[in-house]
Amino acid sequence: MEKKLILITNDDGIKAEGLSALYTALRKDNGFDIKVVAPDRERSAVGHAITVFDPISVKKETKGKDFFGYAVDGTPADCVKLAIKAILKKKPDLLISGINRGPNVGEDIIYSGTVSAATEGTIYEVPSIAMSIDNLKNPDYHIAAKFAVKMAKIVIKKGLPKKTLLNINIPNTAEDKIKGVKITCQSTAKFKEYFIKRADPRGRDYYWMDGDFVEVTKNKNDDYSAIKNNYISITPVHYDMTAYDKINFFEEWHIDKDMK
Amino acid sequence: MEKKLILITNDDGIKAEGLSALYTALRKDNGFDIKVVAPDRERSAVGHAITVFDPISVKKETKGKDFFGYAVDGTPADCVKLAIKAILKKKPDLLISGINRGPNVGEDIIYSGTVSAATEGTIYEVPSIAMSIDNLKNPDYHIAAKFAVKMAKIVIKKGLPKKTLLNINIPNTAEDKIKGVKITCQSTAKFKEYFIKRADPRGRDYYWMDGDFVEVTKNKNDDYSAIKNNYISITPVHYDMTAYDKINFFEEWHIDKDMK
Repeated sequence: MEKKLILITNDDGIKAEGLSALYTALRKDNGFDIKVVAPDRERSAVGHAITVFDPISVKKETKGKDFFGYAVDGTPADCVKLAIKAILKKKPDLLISGINRGPNVGEDIIYSGTVSAATEGTIYEVPSIAMSIDNLKNPDYHIAAKFAVKMAKIVIKKGLPKKTLLNINIPNTAEDKIKGVKITCQSTAKFKEYFIKRADPRGRDYYWMDGDFVEVTKNKNDDYSAIKNNYISITPVHYDMTAYDKINFFEEWHIDKDMK
Repeated sequence: MEKKLILITNDDGIKAEGLSALYTALRKDNGFDIKVVAPDRERSAVGHAITVFDPISVKKETKGKDFFGYAVDGTPADCVKLAIKAILKKKPDLLISGINRGPNVGEDIIYSGTVSAATEGTIYEVPSIAMSIDNLKNPDYHIAAKFAVKMAKIVIKKGLPKKTLLNINIPNTAEDKIKGVKITCQSTAKFKEYFIKRADPRGRDYYWMDGDFVEVTKNKNDDYSAIKNNYISITPVHYDMTAYDKINFFEEWHIDKDMK
């Protein structure tokens, strides 16, 4: 039987430990053929950026003496477009983006390169998963990598609904402390920014962004609450951003084109 | 009466003609105080990127002898964050992003810097509008600028529902050919990419992205159909990307945490 082709990518860059852990775990399963196409350097918070004005260079990355994957001078979405349209010989059966160092939950998923790669896969009708762990400083990728293998098997077998990806977050705890899996919605948790203002030697202003992660409202079925309560969070995500429940509301405004 | 504060930005850069047309039209109305905080250069297709590792510089931009606005070495989302959190003395009553050269419809709005700026405004609870015109090569900003003034008055008066922005696209036609305004949903129209492969003098591969805009399915109530039929399209957009209609579906998969 032909092996299932899994494309893996991330936004922490091709040298990131989380990508390597994902690769190693998936490779242990004989049923998978794993291809890595990932940014040549960290590309966090790039949102769903793509490169439209510049050429995108691609070079082969090795690990020890072995070929590991393709390092792309572009964003996570660029990697997925290039992999599917130019690098891979056939369409992947699955895409996994991650394992991201730090959570991707709440309103901040719109900034996430990890999620954007999975969105891009979904646009190309490749079942796609984003994987992140809720630990920025000292992540243990072991549990996430095992869960990725489990989800790979399930999703390859069952498929995903059209235009729907899975955004998975693993809590920051020991494996035997994880209480289970929750299907969640996107929370309103977000990074609250502030800016530190400085002046350069020529007196020109510049700003550094800093901030803190805060929970705005609590809903026990959201992504943030799930991981904080030691559940694995799986959020089904789509990219139709229409606020359908507001269409009638605005129709009742009766905005005509008259601009006099 | 205190003038209403309108923040304007874009992704085509502070020198773009569409921003200037918007500024001029809004300034003609005595009820508005207009502040410009925009990228110092073109930042198209940056999606919802933000700058997290680098300092962001800001300089004052003049037009003739007059101060015009703040030019930011960052993305459209950076501009909005900086404007609200660091540059402006009070929170704006309205944000308008645009007028973008070229349409922002269909699946491609996830790549749009124009829409991302309006999303960022919405996150900060500023009523926000993205404005684009369906002409990339020879845009006439006149109609869009007039419609922006009309919408500014309406939205300042009525407000917008929480977490909802308006994505407005103006058809590419003469003012008297515009049939009216439609409240629309996001279409499945998209840019179909292909890559042209080259090798640099040292034999390293690089790729140029090119493509064509294609309509995938037709729905007379979507953004793409509206502008192609000479209607102004107004799509209510939100940034909760949860596929709520799929939550039960995945709950029935009964994914537990057991990974043996």
